[in-house]
Amino acid sequence: MPHPPKPIIGVMGPGQFASEIDLANAFALGQRIAQQEWIVLCGGRKAGVMDAVCRGAKSAGGQTIGILPGDNRAGMSESVDIPIVTGMGNARNNINVLTSDVVIACGIGAGTASEVALALKANKNVILLTENETSRQFFKNLYPEKVTVIKSPAEAIELAGAILSIKE
Amino acid sequence: MPHPPKPIIGVMGPGQFASEIDLANAFALGQRIAQQEWIVLCGGRKAGVMDAVCRGAKSAGGQTIGILPGDNRAGMSESVDIPIVTGMGNARNNINVLTSDVVIACGIGAGTASEVALALKANKNVILLTENETSRQFFKNLYPEKVTVIKSPAEAIELAGAILSIKE
Amino acid sequence: MPHPPKPIIGVMGPGQFASEIDLANAFALGQRIAQQEWIVLCGGRKAGVMDAVCRGAKSAGGQTIGILPGDNRAGMSESVDIPIVTGMGNARNNINVLTSDVVIACGIGAGTASEVALALKANKNVILLTENETSRQFFKNLYPEKVTVIKSPAEAIELAGAILSIKE
Amino acid sequence: MPHPPKPIIGVMGPGQFASEIDLANAFALGQRIAQQEWIVLCGGRKAGVMDAVCRGAKSAGGQTIGILPGDNRAGMSESVDIPIVTGMGNARNNINVLTSDVVIACGIGAGTASEVALALKANKNVILLTENETSRQFFKNLYPEKVTVIKSPAEAIELAGAILSIKE
Repeated sequence: MPHPPKPIIGVMGPGQFASEIDLANAFALGQRIAQQEWIVLCGGRKAGVMDAVCRGAKSAGGQTIGILPGDNRAGMSESVDIPIVTGMGNARNNINVLTSDVVIACGIGAGTASEVALALKANKNVILLTENETSRQFFKNLYPEKVTVIKSPAEAIELAGAILSIKE
Repeated sequence: MPHPPKPIIGVMGPGQFASEIDLANAFALGQRIAQQEWIVLCGGRKAGVMDAVCRGAKSAGGQTIGILPGDNRAGMSESVDIPIVTGMGNARNNINVLTSDVVIACGIGAGTASEVALALKANKNVILLTENETSRQFFKNLYPEKVTVIKSPAEAIELAGAILSIKE
Repeated sequence: MPHPPKPIIGVMGPGQFASEIDLANAFALGQRIAQQEWIVLCGGRKAGVMDAVCRGAKSAGGQTIGILPGDNRAGMSESVDIPIVTGMGNARNNINVLTSDVVIACGIGAGTASEVALALKANKNVILLTENETSRQFFKNLYPEKVTVIKSPAEAIELAGAILSIKE
Repeated sequence: MPHPPKPIIGVMGPGQFASEIDLANAFALGQRIAQQEWIVLCGGRKAGVMDAVCRGAKSAGGQTIGILPGDNRAGMSESVDIPIVTGMGNARNNINVLTSDVVIACGIGAGTASEVALALKANKNVILLTENETSRQFFKNLYPEKVTVIKSPAEAIELAGAILSIKE
């Protein structure tokens, strides 16, 4: 008898320009998502938040999906278990959010902002974990009922659990 | 002897939730883009800024491209000349910005925010024409050298002309 | 008062490996499509059938749309008027067929075969103009009521006209 | 220390119009892929070959990826473990083949033909398991060195193993 798919938690964040705090948060998010037996989804590249969240998940025995922008696996994080090769560049950001049961933004950049915006457009719940005050205000004002600003990976996981329990 | 393609100016903005000012700005942008003999590109739906900018362009004898999200022409603005049917939902927002020589955001919403962010990710110049102060601050801080906040359709056209002259 | 969009005729065919006959047919198709005041759509690259059909259309004063696979205009046919930059590689083949009112395959190759198949999947009429007998049998058997095998550009245009008149 | 991703074997085939033989082959392919500890990838819908190959894999304790065409999980096979929600209709067929280390066509239809063609366009090895003689001739002629026609699920798995060993 098949089981329903495990929850998929999308963690979006900057690549090259991730801050030290973003990277530490991403690693901790990966660990905690794995401890819940949820699956991590990210942009899959060996850079910044994408790599850190996958490494965190693997350190805790979890599973990771990487939605890759290129048309092969070049530049992929070595901690991705399930590489999805889209060949569609940043248009793949829409797949990231459509596939995720919950979207967590860990830090902010242009790519991450596009993912938060696409998630809201798709009526998904978005959890913001970032020091960027203006981004928090902007997205919170845009969709007050769908955006929650939190301060730690622990809070993000607690909130994700609450969102998942409502969906079921 | 073939000519190079005419400049394509992407005008992005809210559908259902466009304000009266957004709609007036979009119509004026369409008119002025047509007067320059540039081509208008937008999301193509019969709603909000998309419809208004196309109507403006047609009122001045211009040409319009609509990059449609659905897999047929249902819901298309009647003022679209060249309907591109993508069948890929909001992932088409990336095509909107990649195809545009200059991106103008007229108002703000989740879809528009995704387009501004994807344009910046693709290293495109973005012109913001919106009353939403937080969005102006957010995107301006994100990419100071690529984002310009302006106050009127006339300024947007002047700036677009300057950007196009540098590209040539 | 806006007019409905002009008919868009997608002409699909090989790039690098187009035969001399394919190229001559593509040029003639472009000319004849332009003479009908229809718009040519193709994959937009400066190669094979794509370039030839655009050159034919421009030689007769027509208009051409190129749906480009890359994330910029590099490698584009100089005879494309409206370049659509998708950044999604061959996934753009689905946009080619969804956007076209009628799909004409001029020659055959892997890319063209994918376009014929995607067009049939989308319930579009497909006109085959190719010397490849096996491809004609294969696609004709697959969808007898949607595939028509013809022998000349003139026949293709006549049939396209009939299909368009039924759609209206 | 992370491991490289497990091989991903894409099994493509008709939905609604799959034959009894196609369905039996698909189930057997799923079982055998799982027994090799490879991952099954398919189009993810609860129909025809897609559903049968996932059921086969789950019956043998394997893991399954479903690349879904819609913008949510409606219509998904209950035997999909990792649902990827693309929202891009049949353009997702290109993701199916780019993500797969080996592509197996089990039966034929318009969607499957598009996947075989896109796989060849992407220079992937394709294994054809189908009673449709014309499709075998057509694709074999198109790319003799990349297409192999076989007669049973057992042969398909043996050949997939050989292809994977060359890639490593």
